[in-house]
Amino acid sequence: MIENITIRPSMVSPTTELYIGENFLEEELLRGICLQLQGRVVVVTSEILRDLYGAKLAKKLGAELLIIPSGKNEKTQKHLENELFRMGCGRDTILIALGGGSITDLVGFVASIYLRGVFLILVPTTLLAMVDAAIGGKTSIDTMFGKNQIGTFYYPKAIIADVNVLKTLPEKEWANGLIEVLKMGLVFDKSIWDIAKKSSKSRELISKAVQGKITITERDPTEQGLRRILNFGHTIGHALEQVAEYTISHGEAVAIGSLAEAHLSMQLGYLPRGEFEEIQSLYSSFSLQLPKLYTRRSFFKAVAYDKKKLSDKVRFVLIDKIGHALPFEGAYCRPVIEEELKPTLDWMEKNYGGCSHRALAASRELDCTSL
Amino acid sequence: MIENITIRPSMVSPTTELYIGENFLEEELLRGICLQLQGRVVVVTSEILRDLYGAKLAKKLGAELLIIPSGKNEKTQKHLENELFRMGCGRDTILIALGGGSITDLVGFVASIYLRGVFLILVPTTLLAMVDAAIGGKTSIDTMFGKNQIGTFYYPKAIIADVNVLKTLPEKEWANGLIEVLKMGLVFDKSIWDIAKKSSKSRELISKAVQGKITITERDPTEQGLRRILNFGHTIGHALEQVAEYTISHGEAVAIGSLAEAHLSMQLGYLPRGEFEEIQSLYSSFSLQLPKLYTRRSFFKAVAYDKKKLSDKVRFVLIDKIGHALPFEGAYCRPVIEEELKPTLDWMEKNYGGCSHRALAASRELDCTSL
Repeated sequence: MIENITIRPSMVSPTTELYIGENFLEEELLRGICLQLQGRVVVVTSEILRDLYGAKLAKKLGAELLIIPSGKNEKTQKHLENELFRMGCGRDTILIALGGGSITDLVGFVASIYLRGVFLILVPTTLLAMVDAAIGGKTSIDTMFGKNQIGTFYYPKAIIADVNVLKTLPEKEWANGLIEVLKMGLVFDKSIWDIAKKSSKSRELISKAVQGKITITERDPTEQGLRRILNFGHTIGHALEQVAEYTISHGEAVAIGSLAEAHLSMQLGYLPRGEFEEIQSLYSSFSLQLPKLYTRRSFFKAVAYDKKKLSDKVRFVLIDKIGHALPFEGAYCRPVIEEELKPTLDWMEKNYGGCSHRALAASRELDCTSL
Repeated sequence: MIENITIRPSMVSPTTELYIGENFLEEELLRGICLQLQGRVVVVTSEILRDLYGAKLAKKLGAELLIIPSGKNEKTQKHLENELFRMGCGRDTILIALGGGSITDLVGFVASIYLRGVFLILVPTTLLAMVDAAIGGKTSIDTMFGKNQIGTFYYPKAIIADVNVLKTLPEKEWANGLIEVLKMGLVFDKSIWDIAKKSSKSRELISKAVQGKITITERDPTEQGLRRILNFGHTIGHALEQVAEYTISHGEAVAIGSLAEAHLSMQLGYLPRGEFEEIQSLYSSFSLQLPKLYTRRSFFKAVAYDKKKLSDKVRFVLIDKIGHALPFEGAYCRPVIEEELKPTLDWMEKNYGGCSHRALAASRELDCTSL
């Protein structure tokens, strides 16, 4: 069964055709889309994915193949740009990004700035990319100042989500995607949460998560309000990734972040304890641990660089029940001062810290400002 | 008198407020706009413009001042980005680009990609930037592969065109802007041409040229069709700049380019000889010369990198009378093969080449393929 969903971001007229189904990489779907766009097709992927799907796909499409080194930083971006220039690619180029979120983010960014924009088609190969990175028009690269710090809003012509490719997805990669699915359940759609409680690997779950993300991003394409709820778990999550110098996975960081921000929601009086405990219980299947490099000082430094802040105040998305983020008069986030964050950090360190963190948390004075 | 024009690019809902008038940098206009946007204001400018206007303006606005090195390449872009990160600028940052086209293009690009986009206000300080670079949402930087090869479409919140700053504009800089004004006359609005014939320095001329650019870019914000007419003179012009390794001014290159592309229009049977001669006559006030580094071989190599081409064919905007570019079924450009371009290059070399080019042009065999 093929689901075909047309995404219409309200601020831009070009629409994205999203296809969820099976065997797309074998069928004529992609070829038809490329023929319609009438351009020079370049499949951009990693070495591993070239061997798995890329080479075959490029051959089928009569396309060129461009292999990019791993990472989505400025160096990789320049490499990709320069290769396209060397190939003499013009404005009618169709870049097909085949890969996980790093690849779709990076190729999306290059597609948005190369000659001020060429055609883009996303073929996400991980659950995370399917339900999250590929949808919503966000592109980005990382800089020395943090993840996703440079990027654009740019809409692909099509997204091809072939769930067949997920069959070979490593368990850890699956968990990474599931964390974002659960987050969608927490902030927007309780039915996602309820399905996930029963089974974490159903086609329905993927479809619902995708639909949630589309609904949110269509209502607020450039993150002026509602879309901020998708940052739930990410303020703390991103900071943890930075503190860890990216030695923990995005999924793990966001899982701890989601739990901690749920705790913060409870501790600030919004979320009932029962709901928090239900959340904690479902997340207990993940093995979570704060990064070894974690200290409060480095954590606060990292939080301050988070994009979500409006100048000096750190703002958090908060929930008042499973499936509902608080609107805060359309801002969908609330400034939280260090003092308010403290009990949550104590809790986080106690539950997910290593021995040294736990000892520290137990012995710590209650004065945040001494850090 | 203040003219206030609201620009509504059809594809995006945020609008740009454009103000043309005098003494804006002295008055409360900019302050009011910044107050409305409620952000952290950073004036970005060059060292020279800081001394002329920047420092005073920043003080008036209570803004920070960021001085960028000259050039609009990747290095300058990174420098600007990194400074903003170091300052801890968040998403509520308002970047005010104070300068000529290089500065408005560069700051516009950085504003569009920094944290996926911050507020942008353009304060063009040259005629060229006022009538051309600042209007239409194009941002860009240069790469080793050519000018403006990397960029985005991104719309400023406001454009402040203070004609007072033009009073100190060097004659050569004025000519650079005038060339784009004349081009607008050639491809879109004969009344601009007629005003320019009488006086090249009237407020009406600036206003009409600005209005022309707005009309075109509103109808076709992302250059799918009509907007291509603005590339008249630029296919050859950009190639000449590249050949010259940017030792000739953009204005001079586009002036020769406009003349040559008018010649091409005539020689392909679209433009009557009388109209071509009128064009040639008005341009005779400029002192034009092909760059010393010009050779046909390097010229053809440069043309091939031009963004306007759709893969392998080089396309030209052509006119059939002063004030009207040919639509070519909505494409507003036509592929021209080397053989068709040859008589125009002969003419260009004969009229604007140095002694060696002229001798070469006189003695050259008519076979393009031997190059």
